[in-house]
Amino acid sequence: MDKLTRAIRDLVIANRILANEGVVDAYGHISLRHPEHPDRFLLSRSRSPELVEPEDIMQFSLDGKVVGDDKRPPYLERFIHGGVFESRPEIMAVVHSHAQSVLPYSISSTPLQPVIHVGAILGTHIPIWDIADDFGDTNLLVVNPDQGRSLAKRLGPYSISLMRGHGFTAAGKTLIQALWMAVYLPVNAAVQSEASRLGPFKPLSKREIELGGALDPTSPAMLRSWEYWAKRAGCEALLNDD
Amino acid sequence: MDKLTRAIRDLVIANRILANEGVVDAYGHISLRHPEHPDRFLLSRSRSPELVEPEDIMQFSLDGKVVGDDKRPPYLERFIHGGVFESRPEIMAVVHSHAQSVLPYSISSTPLQPVIHVGAILGTHIPIWDIADDFGDTNLLVVNPDQGRSLAKRLGPYSISLMRGHGFTAAGKTLIQALWMAVYLPVNAAVQSEASRLGPFKPLSKREIELGGALDPTSPAMLRSWEYWAKRAGCEALLNDD
Amino acid sequence: MDKLTRAIRDLVIANRILANEGVVDAYGHISLRHPEHPDRFLLSRSRSPELVEPEDIMQFSLDGKVVGDDKRPPYLERFIHGGVFESRPEIMAVVHSHAQSVLPYSISSTPLQPVIHVGAILGTHIPIWDIADDFGDTNLLVVNPDQGRSLAKRLGPYSISLMRGHGFTAAGKTLIQALWMAVYLPVNAAVQSEASRLGPFKPLSKREIELGGALDPTSPAMLRSWEYWAKRAGCEALLNDD
Amino acid sequence: MDKLTRAIRDLVIANRILANEGVVDAYGHISLRHPEHPDRFLLSRSRSPELVEPEDIMQFSLDGKVVGDDKRPPYLERFIHGGVFESRPEIMAVVHSHAQSVLPYSISSTPLQPVIHVGAILGTHIPIWDIADDFGDTNLLVVNPDQGRSLAKRLGPYSISLMRGHGFTAAGKTLIQALWMAVYLPVNAAVQSEASRLGPFKPLSKREIELGGALDPTSPAMLRSWEYWAKRAGCEALLNDD
Repeated sequence: MDKLTRAIRDLVIANRILANEGVVDAYGHISLRHPEHPDRFLLSRSRSPELVEPEDIMQFSLDGKVVGDDKRPPYLERFIHGGVFESRPEIMAVVHSHAQSVLPYSISSTPLQPVIHVGAILGTHIPIWDIADDFGDTNLLVVNPDQGRSLAKRLGPYSISLMRGHGFTAAGKTLIQALWMAVYLPVNAAVQSEASRLGPFKPLSKREIELGGALDPTSPAMLRSWEYWAKRAGCEALLNDD
Repeated sequence: MDKLTRAIRDLVIANRILANEGVVDAYGHISLRHPEHPDRFLLSRSRSPELVEPEDIMQFSLDGKVVGDDKRPPYLERFIHGGVFESRPEIMAVVHSHAQSVLPYSISSTPLQPVIHVGAILGTHIPIWDIADDFGDTNLLVVNPDQGRSLAKRLGPYSISLMRGHGFTAAGKTLIQALWMAVYLPVNAAVQSEASRLGPFKPLSKREIELGGALDPTSPAMLRSWEYWAKRAGCEALLNDD
Repeated sequence: MDKLTRAIRDLVIANRILANEGVVDAYGHISLRHPEHPDRFLLSRSRSPELVEPEDIMQFSLDGKVVGDDKRPPYLERFIHGGVFESRPEIMAVVHSHAQSVLPYSISSTPLQPVIHVGAILGTHIPIWDIADDFGDTNLLVVNPDQGRSLAKRLGPYSISLMRGHGFTAAGKTLIQALWMAVYLPVNAAVQSEASRLGPFKPLSKREIELGGALDPTSPAMLRSWEYWAKRAGCEALLNDD
Repeated sequence: MDKLTRAIRDLVIANRILANEGVVDAYGHISLRHPEHPDRFLLSRSRSPELVEPEDIMQFSLDGKVVGDDKRPPYLERFIHGGVFESRPEIMAVVHSHAQSVLPYSISSTPLQPVIHVGAILGTHIPIWDIADDFGDTNLLVVNPDQGRSLAKRLGPYSISLMRGHGFTAAGKTLIQALWMAVYLPVNAAVQSEASRLGPFKPLSKREIELGGALDPTSPAMLRSWEYWAKRAGCEALLNDD
C-alpha cells in the first residue's frame, strides 16, 4: 500500500471513529496533510463523517482550493483546515467538531482547563476564537481563507482553539494525537463542569500538563486506542487491509 | 415516483429519523403538507414514529378531520399540525416532540435562546404557549381545532413554540428544515443549560441568528444531514427507492 | 391462549421493556397479580429482567411464600410486591426500580412532583418511604412481609412511593399503566432537576394532574407505547403470538 | 476446565463487561490474583478491555515483572494491581478505571460517599490518593512499584481509592465484588452529584454501609448480575463453556 493510499485509508477510519465516539454528527470533519505534498491536505467531500468512503477524499491546497478537476461539493469550512496547516508546518491532522459538552466553554467566561490526566494533551492554554472579533456578525461558519487564517492566528502555538458558539479545532502532530484530543476534550470538559458544581477543585499543574502531553504517539499505550476505536466503528476490514 | 408517493416516503423516513435521533419516543409526530392539496396534510395513524410505514400515513383537512373513509384511530393531537398549516401557508412540515432537554425551558422563567450556530435556525424569539392561558386546567393535550389555533396564534411568525409542561412544536418551510430544528433545539437547550451553570455566557446576536437561519435548505451542507440521519435510522432502502 | 399464559407472556415482555428502556439493570423487577387467583402474584425467579423467559415466572401468595413446589431462588424483595397487592385490591401490576434519575429525590429534602404532562400519571403526591423509620439500620432491602407492609402503608392510596436511598415502587391498575409510570417517572425527575437549576418553574396544577392521570389505559394513545416498547425490546415474536 | 483456564476465562468476560457497561474505554484494566500462585496476578497485555481474548492474558509477579518469557508490551500501570495484591492478601481482583462520573470527586474538596444501597459496597470511607503528595509533578500514571505501593498504602484497608485527576482503583475479595464496585461507584457518584444540587440529602448511615456491604458474593442475588452483564457483553458462548 503506497503512502497516499494508506493516508486515505487511515483518514476514512478516523472519520468513522469520530462519528462513532460521538465527537461529530452530520457535521464536523477531520483532515490529514498530504503525505507527499505538504502543501496539500486530504479531506472528504461534503459528506457526514460516518459515511465517508476512500473515494470521497478530495485534495486541497492550503488556501482551500480544490486540487485537480474534482467537481464534487467540498465542505464549506475547509478553510479551518487550510488555515492551520498553513501556519503550523508540524501539524499533520486537524479535527473540527461541535461536541456538545465542549460548546458551553466556547461561550462562557469560565475557562476550560485540563483537570484529568488524559486532558494533559489539550495543553497549558486553550484559546477561544470569536469570529465576531475580526468579522463582525456572520453565520459563524469559517468560509474563506481569511477566516481560516484568523482562527489559526488565535490558535497560535497551542493544540486546540475553542470557537465561540460553534465548537473547536484540534491540531495534532499525528492522526492519533488529533483523535485523542477530539475524544478527550469533551470528557475533560464534562468532568470540569461537574467538578465545578461540587465546589473547589484541583486542576492539573502546568508541569503535569507538560509531562502528560509528552506521551509518545507511537507507544503501545497510545496506539491501543486506535485498534479499539476502529473496531468499535466497524472498521476491522479496513484496519486489516495492510 | 409521483409527488404524493415521494412525500409519503420522505415523511416515513422523517418519522424514523426523529425516533432514532431521540427527538420522539412512543409519542411525538411529524407531518407534511399535502404536495398537491395545500388544504390537507399527511400524518401517520396513531402509531409510534419509529414503527411508521407508508401505509400508516393518513390525510387530514386543516381542521383535523380525516379525509376520506379512513377508520383507523388518528393521533389525538393532530390539531397541532392543522393549526399551524392553517395559519402559515408557507410552512410545509411540522414536528411535535417532548424532547427531554427542551422540557425544562417550557416550565421555566429562564428563556431559551440560540447560543450555538446550528441554533440560529430556531429564530430570534421562541415563544412559550401555556394551554392554561386560554383553556384553564386540562390534561395539556391539544385535542381540538380551537386549541390548535391557540397554539398557532402564539407561535405567530416564529419557527418554534415551546408548550408549557408538554414539549415543543417546530414549523419548517421544508422537511429538512423542520428536522434540523427538531434535532438541534434539544442540543441548543442542553448547551445553554450547561453554560448557564458555568456563569455568564454570550448567546448569538440577533444578526447572527438571522444570518445563520438563512441557510439554504437545498444546499449540499443542509442535505448532508438527510443522508446521514436516514442511513442511521435504517432507511437506506427507502432512500434509494427513487 | 388462556388467561394465565397470556399474563405470563405479557409479564415477560414487560420485564424486557423495563430493561431495554433503562428502568432496571441487573436489578429491579415487575409483577402481575394472578389473573384467576387474586390472592397470588406472578414474578420471575431471581433473574435479571432482560433475560426473563416465560418458564422463569413463579407464583407467590401475598405474604411472599412460593406457591407449589418451586425450589428456584426467588427475588429477596418479593415482599414489595406482596405488600402492595395485599393492601390495594385494585392494583394489578407493580414495578420496583433503582432508576438513576429518580434516586436523588429519594434522599433529598426537595420533593419530586409532576412537571410534564406524562408525569400526571404519577399522581398528586409521591410519598417517600424510609425503611429506617420502622426498622432502624438495615441493608435497605425489603426482605420480609413486615417490611413490605410498611412500604405499602406509606404508599397508601397513591401510585408511587420513593424508597430512601434505594429506588421506587409503582402500582398500576393495568400493566401498561405501571410501565408508563416506570418509564416516565425518571423522565419527569430529570426534567424537574434541570428546571430547578434554571430558576423558578411551574409544575402541573393539582387539577391538571388529575385530568392527565385519568387517561384510559385501553385507548389507542396509551397502547401505542406497548407496541413500540415491545418491538424495541426485541419482543416482536412474543407480541404476535396471540 | 482447570483453575487457571477458568480464571482466565472469567477475567476475559470481566474485561468485556467493564467495557460494555461503560466503566472503561480504550483505557482501564482488571486483574485477578493467580488461582494457584498467590504471588502472581493475571492481566491482559496492553490492549483495550473490550478486545481482550484469553491468549492476551499475561502473568506478573507482585512487583509488576512479567512472569516467563512473554515479550508482549504490558500495561504501563500494572503496578496499580501489583501494589494492591502485595499489601492485601485477601484481595482477589482489582479494577482500575477512569469512569467519567467518578472523576469530579477525584479532584474535588467534596467527599464521595455511599448514598444508595448498592453504594454500600464502596465502604465507610473512600480515600483519595494524590500522586503529587509522594512524587511531585508527574504525568499522573502509576508506572513503577513505588507508585503502586504508595497507592496501596493510601487505599489501606478500604475497598476503593480515588486517584486525583485520574480515576479509581477498586479491590474485591471476589471478581464479582470488584465488578459491582466498578459498576456502582459511577452510579453512586452521579446520584450524589445530582442530589447535592437539589439541596440537603441523607446519605447511608455507617451501619447501613456495613450491613449493605456484607452481601454474600456467592448469593443468587449477587450472581444474577454476572449472567446479565456477561450476556449483554456478548459473552454467552464463553459463559457456557464450562
